Amino acid sequence: MSTPAYDPTNVFAKILRGELPAHKVHEDAETLVIMDIMPRGDGHVLVIPKAPSRNILDIAETDLFAVMATVQKMARALVRAFDADGTTIQQFSEAAGGQVVFHTHVHVIPRFDGVPLKPHTGEMADQAVLAAHADRIRAALA
Amino acid sequence: MSTPAYDPTNVFAKILRGELPAHKVHEDAETLVIMDIMPRGDGHVLVIPKAPSRNILDIAETDLFAVMATVQKMARALVRAFDADGTTIQQFSEAAGGQVVFHTHVHVIPRFDGVPLKPHTGEMADQAVLAAHADRIRAALA
Repeated sequence: MSTPAYDPTNVFAKILRGELPAHKVHEDAETLVIMDIMPRGDGHVLVIPKAPSRNILDIAETDLFAVMATVQKMARALVRAFDADGTTIQQFSEAAGGQVVFHTHVHVIPRFDGVPLKPHTGEMADQAVLAAHADRIRAALA
Repeated sequence: MSTPAYDPTNVFAKILRGELPAHKVHEDAETLVIMDIMPRGDGHVLVIPKAPSRNILDIAETDLFAVMATVQKMARALVRAFDADGTTIQQFSEAAGGQVVFHTHVHVIPRFDGVPLKPHTGEMADQAVLAAHADRIRAALA
């Protein structure tokens, strides 16, 4: 395969441009962190580079490093915010790899002993719950 | 939770010290790449930092960046080696997060349209198949 070109009409590009709303958790010069609206567990966030790239196959190394610095910061914050027992990190590239939105993003999910990941149902979480979780994570980052 | 201390008797530390065999795919100053002996798909590799750390919660940022540079190199090589349609990357921290060996490692798995990840069966892959896949990935890296 050859990686297709980046398409700036994807949902995360729209969120980065302020054309769509999101529950923002953290932002710095290179990255944005938002709540996943179809979480596989409480506190599931997405770390998104601001620079355009499709996935791990085409992202610039400097952007990848900025994303991973934020991923580590978020993993630690999620453990504090939810008193979690661990974290699961996932990154999907291309549809075969599990990718749905074609702007690079990394899933960071707090995990709890005995609690499996929820399946992908395609169902949106309650907005008030997402907002409350975002508040809780921002407080843990402060 | 507080992250438990690093335990140097783990399997990957033993592989790094040469005390246990592995199908090595790539090695540089900071990282080692080996075949996962219980692959969730053909070509499933593990990227391991040489420096000791338990997982994303305690790894030094410089080691994390070295790991991710190798992860990207491997994702691209796996696509070339297996003519894959995408990749899936996973990193598990602590038992609740899915971690089994407590030395930081990142799973990089080539993916193919219509082929789901195999479940974790705990069954070891055929050693000759793993060796052949390692050869194929090394050739794609060359």
